[in-house]
Amino acid sequence: MEIKKTKTGICLDGFSAGGLKEGKYGVAMISAEKICRAAGVFTTNTMKAAPVLLTMEKVAGGRVQAVIANSGNANCCVKGGMEDAKKMARLAGELLGIRSEHVAVASTGIIGRKMDLAAVEKIAGKVSKEMACSPEAGMKAAKAIMTTDTREKMLSFECDGIEVAGVCKGAGMISPKMATMLCFITTNADLGVPDLTDCLRRSVQDSFNMLVVDGDMSTNDMVLLMSSGTRKCGKADFQALLDHLCREFAKLLALDGEGATKFIEVEVSGAADKETARKAAKAIVSSNLVKTAMHGENPNWGRIAAAMGSVIGYDFEKIDLVFSSGRKTASVVEKGEMKDLAQARNVLKAKDIRVSVNLNSGKESAVAWGCDMTCGYIKINAEYN
Amino acid sequence: MEIKKTKTGICLDGFSAGGLKEGKYGVAMISAEKICRAAGVFTTNTMKAAPVLLTMEKVAGGRVQAVIANSGNANCCVKGGMEDAKKMARLAGELLGIRSEHVAVASTGIIGRKMDLAAVEKIAGKVSKEMACSPEAGMKAAKAIMTTDTREKMLSFECDGIEVAGVCKGAGMISPKMATMLCFITTNADLGVPDLTDCLRRSVQDSFNMLVVDGDMSTNDMVLLMSSGTRKCGKADFQALLDHLCREFAKLLALDGEGATKFIEVEVSGAADKETARKAAKAIVSSNLVKTAMHGENPNWGRIAAAMGSVIGYDFEKIDLVFSSGRKTASVVEKGEMKDLAQARNVLKAKDIRVSVNLNSGKESAVAWGCDMTCGYIKINAEYN
Repeated sequence: MEIKKTKTGICLDGFSAGGLKEGKYGVAMISAEKICRAAGVFTTNTMKAAPVLLTMEKVAGGRVQAVIANSGNANCCVKGGMEDAKKMARLAGELLGIRSEHVAVASTGIIGRKMDLAAVEKIAGKVSKEMACSPEAGMKAAKAIMTTDTREKMLSFECDGIEVAGVCKGAGMISPKMATMLCFITTNADLGVPDLTDCLRRSVQDSFNMLVVDGDMSTNDMVLLMSSGTRKCGKADFQALLDHLCREFAKLLALDGEGATKFIEVEVSGAADKETARKAAKAIVSSNLVKTAMHGENPNWGRIAAAMGSVIGYDFEKIDLVFSSGRKTASVVEKGEMKDLAQARNVLKAKDIRVSVNLNSGKESAVAWGCDMTCGYIKINAEYN
Repeated sequence: MEIKKTKTGICLDGFSAGGLKEGKYGVAMISAEKICRAAGVFTTNTMKAAPVLLTMEKVAGGRVQAVIANSGNANCCVKGGMEDAKKMARLAGELLGIRSEHVAVASTGIIGRKMDLAAVEKIAGKVSKEMACSPEAGMKAAKAIMTTDTREKMLSFECDGIEVAGVCKGAGMISPKMATMLCFITTNADLGVPDLTDCLRRSVQDSFNMLVVDGDMSTNDMVLLMSSGTRKCGKADFQALLDHLCREFAKLLALDGEGATKFIEVEVSGAADKETARKAAKAIVSSNLVKTAMHGENPNWGRIAAAMGSVIGYDFEKIDLVFSSGRKTASVVEKGEMKDLAQARNVLKAKDIRVSVNLNSGKESAVAWGCDMTCGYIKINAEYN
């Protein structure tokens, strides 16, 4: 099967979208002609924002027709947050002419401040008048949910008539213990809710859950999948397509990490089991010291060894460590022996860097994504409010 | 019992010390007239440096007479590292005229580079000629083990004739899962090795293990306690004194965190159990987003709520959150309700900030220490080699 990138965007047949930012707030809406089968993955933070709790309930029923999402305020840690989330669902329901029980709600922005519901209402009103089924309309939705993101994120893929598409936001407060951002996905795949849910969980596991920007766990993350069910398809084919979409989104998020100047992909191979490979890869991309070294184009690989040692046991004398970027490659450590670092310094000048560690102790591997840590990150987060 | 700070430094009666830095390397030695009873706590990183492994063996025997420590190289992830560590022990043994089996070894600096043993030997030779029992000699040892530290750390306390004293280094690669730096402690307390070991573990638990600079786990950390056993004392009294020393060192380390401009103390109280309080306090000081907000003097307290939610469950509507510094105090959240943030902004201008969270769900509490995250941290670690 060959997966092709398409220009459709989030608005597959039967879906429309819209979005607008005004002042501190942005509102995006994505709506389907008919009620969709739905699946979701949500933050594992115990302090879940009100819209997360509300949407979890709706997704548990397996039926969603639209989502309304705002940027500018997380609607988290505030009294009356659930009331506000429900009002947003009612508002979208009225504007879109659908039942509010089938409207999912998502929020992103500062935690602990009361939502300005009037602002959301005003913007949503405008958005509802321009809902359309087009790549441009999808792009408006992608832009409206951005916070510290520097670019909008919308992707769509097709394979044998099965389509998956999504919009996604996220740049900081990104950690590998859950979904780690907002992502709304549409598909035409004719699968039941249990299969959709199962596929989504698997895809998230090896994509968003392998992504780290700063290790802080959000209160508002969700990945929501809505299926129109108009195209017959096998579960394995859908899984492959959804995996691809989620991985591509994860990479986009890493690339747009707050203040990032370099994209970092880490592969740990030769592990005895998958979980060991995952833990090691995530520990490497999570390490502030690895991230600052990458920023300094500094081949201080001992930090990689230390980061792995904080989460897994391994035999240092067996490991190979390679830095690469495109066709440039530098062998840094071979069977525990350090090689010349001149070429490593050279490779680290690139904007996208791959760190490959082979533990030479088994057959399992895992890939994680992240970015360098810079003064830009510090500035963004010292000032964000 | 009243604990008094003294001017003695690490050189209690029967101990001598010395230290010198030359170029990239520094060497410190601390030596006792007689073989001491010894206890140690070591990094829990699986990738332990050779000197850690060697010193663990020696401490297991409970008898140590001297320690030699170098800065400039971690002697970790290099072939032949154990041979080099043993050579350092032999060298110190010869220079000090004691048996090398009773010499502990510690190293700190870059990981993955071969030690320049000739440099260490040359410096150690000079140090050995100036070993003395004086505050100045102790200070030389404290200075010799510094890496990115901006000030030397030596403390000594006394209570009813029982004395504890130490030198300590550490500024980065500091995480709360183990000892997190080098710390050499001397005492005259006449307690057996099991009691010394037990007391040291307890002290470390509520001091160094509650300290976070960047969450990276070192390969080389150790806290080594050497007792001359010349003063009768009760275990509880010694525990109190050792607790005090270790807590004061932990605060000094936080204050000197790489690039730090603010010292942060976090207390979580009203927890149902101690472990919950510990986890929550550590999560708060560990969060990059909390650390950058503090740097920006930005009362973005939602990040504190999110950091706690990533590790413990709690009822937001019960919590109180207070920022304070000296006599200045700002109530930020009361029973889940946000208060005016103007005073909070004012308090955050201070250089040392206390964050107090009361979960109002029990009687247990814990304190953790850390610092803000700044561009200084990024620069130090982008360039460190």
